[in-house]
Amino acid sequence: MGRASEDLAADSRVAEPAEAISVEELQLATRNHGMPLEALRYDVTPVGLHYLLVHYDIPDVDPAAWSLRVEGLVEHERSFNLEAIRSRPMETLRVTIECAGNGRARLLPRPVSQPWLTEAVGTADWTGTPLRSLLGECGIRSGAVDLAFTGADHGIERGVEQDYARGMSVEDALDGDLLLAYAMNGQPLPPQHGAPVRLVAPGWYGMAHVKWLSRIVVLDRPFEGYQNATAYRFLEPTGESGDSDHDEADVPVTRIRPRALMRPPGFPDFMSRVRVVDVGGHLLRGRAWSGTAPVERVEVSVDSGMTWHAAELEPALSPWAWRAWTFTWTAAAPGETELCCRATDAAGSVQPWNQPWNRQGMANNMVQRIPVVVRTA
Amino acid sequence: MGRASEDLAADSRVAEPAEAISVEELQLATRNHGMPLEALRYDVTPVGLHYLLVHYDIPDVDPAAWSLRVEGLVEHERSFNLEAIRSRPMETLRVTIECAGNGRARLLPRPVSQPWLTEAVGTADWTGTPLRSLLGECGIRSGAVDLAFTGADHGIERGVEQDYARGMSVEDALDGDLLLAYAMNGQPLPPQHGAPVRLVAPGWYGMAHVKWLSRIVVLDRPFEGYQNATAYRFLEPTGESGDSDHDEADVPVTRIRPRALMRPPGFPDFMSRVRVVDVGGHLLRGRAWSGTAPVERVEVSVDSGMTWHAAELEPALSPWAWRAWTFTWTAAAPGETELCCRATDAAGSVQPWNQPWNRQGMANNMVQRIPVVVRTA
Repeated sequence: MGRASEDLAADSRVAEPAEAISVEELQLATRNHGMPLEALRYDVTPVGLHYLLVHYDIPDVDPAAWSLRVEGLVEHERSFNLEAIRSRPMETLRVTIECAGNGRARLLPRPVSQPWLTEAVGTADWTGTPLRSLLGECGIRSGAVDLAFTGADHGIERGVEQDYARGMSVEDALDGDLLLAYAMNGQPLPPQHGAPVRLVAPGWYGMAHVKWLSRIVVLDRPFEGYQNATAYRFLEPTGESGDSDHDEADVPVTRIRPRALMRPPGFPDFMSRVRVVDVGGHLLRGRAWSGTAPVERVEVSVDSGMTWHAAELEPALSPWAWRAWTFTWTAAAPGETELCCRATDAAGSVQPWNQPWNRQGMANNMVQRIPVVVRTA
Repeated sequence: MGRASEDLAADSRVAEPAEAISVEELQLATRNHGMPLEALRYDVTPVGLHYLLVHYDIPDVDPAAWSLRVEGLVEHERSFNLEAIRSRPMETLRVTIECAGNGRARLLPRPVSQPWLTEAVGTADWTGTPLRSLLGECGIRSGAVDLAFTGADHGIERGVEQDYARGMSVEDALDGDLLLAYAMNGQPLPPQHGAPVRLVAPGWYGMAHVKWLSRIVVLDRPFEGYQNATAYRFLEPTGESGDSDHDEADVPVTRIRPRALMRPPGFPDFMSRVRVVDVGGHLLRGRAWSGTAPVERVEVSVDSGMTWHAAELEPALSPWAWRAWTFTWTAAAPGETELCCRATDAAGSVQPWNQPWNRQGMANNMVQRIPVVVRTA
């Protein structure tokens, strides 16, 4: 078996302690992209600046030939073409979506996968029709447990060939404001964001918002597909038995943990992205969000995390979108520091300074740290 | 001096032979992004899939307050607001733009900068007003040598604080179809592509297409700014004196060298991006371009570069845009191979198999190689 065939069967791995980013990780980083942090200035992220993660290839879906099939444990199995979806009740939701792997490349040791640093987020106005009413029309039968959402994105991952598919419990799907979205920021969905129709699952990490949606199957049992059973899991060391390879908690990744990000002030150095600011007053601005409970508090540190101060929170833009915050910083003297921010949500969850590690690098929300050089004006 | 201050003054460097991608390079790769190669299917690259390279931060330019100042060696120094630019003669050009650093991360040793692999390209329909007629109105005076184009993107690079600025000779600027563009693919320019107005310089690498354009200065001498004199240079070993640090040719980077890219067939493995295809016939498709002379020939190899075959060229979409090509491949038996393609332009320039090295990793156009696993259908 040659090198390429071995790649197809390779298991996931964790980088060696001194191992820098590989060409394979870079291949993913040059395809997918985060939101440049200065784009935190926009309430709604312009198309092209919203983070993007495509598991396999962007599929070539013909909107005229496309349909969404609903089948399984329903009274009426049905197919809906794009015209049928667009003629149903329309709703627009402003939703912040973050990749579950955000922050992965800052972990030590580093799980080898899409190497996000901190920017895998974006907020859009998604327009579509509520999933709940469409399912109501099909009639979910008693005994239904999970919904399996399948997209057209086709590939192989750790030896498993698949169309990207995610399951969600019927309860979660009917309780949430899930949307079958065909527009983003008032324009038809761009190909890379799931055209012609994608799922939007407010509050959930990105893996639940299935793009290029083609099929919904109502199941009488939990969905056991790859993306639920293998990929999007917390595999966390428990330290209980002493066998580090197997001594792990195994818990599904679901809703977005709280995070605040700051729009880096001043201007950057090209290569290091270190910021330069002048001595004097600076209005620091940022956004904070959580998919678990509303953001209740944002704190800022201007001394590398030694002391923390409350930021001003602006009114929420939507129940599912980030909240803007501000903090006035007086840079008193030339020198170096790190600017940091952290969010706390109404569930009492606060961003950690030291990120607890998990084998696949999921749902990291460590405090953002921005190195800054203060200079005489 | 602390670490962050040292970063601000750091010179460019070349990675050690065994040095993998650094976090600093990854920071650039998560902000900027290439065009996912499956997007070669589109004649015109959708917004968000076109490659993006921002030197510093995307500036926050208020279109209502914006103006373009033309000054220096002209009869009439003038300022044009957006309304004035939009009311001038309108032209739409289909132009392929490629980053001069494309391919840099494949060089050995690797120049440390934005770590492109092969995807830093895109084609858009740019709408704006011809630069030539606007300059004609201002009246370029005799003795004019260069035009300096300055954008609003502000930062520091190897210790030099600057607004991004590039010079071009008056001759090149008046000979070419340069455009002051305010729309991309029929929509107002998105912030990341230079809103409200950018320069489009057909045939030139991306560094010449100055975004967030604010000023044009007509000079009586060559422009000696950082981006011309330092950044976008070929520094190539000549091997003449034996002093490898100084024994370099120093030549400006200008027009795009020929390149062909193939839309990878089949489907990918998530982590390695290795492709899987079935035994049988496959219509391979791609695009080829050159900013120097029209593309005359595209060749394909299905045996890792051992033998080459002519591809079919489709008609050109525009004098400045990529040309589509096709090639029918019969994958006869299961196994592994590399698919490759290379373009030749009318100037006789052909893509190299082994990339000649230069210190800043500029204008690389080595042959694309796609590892493929052929399986029994």
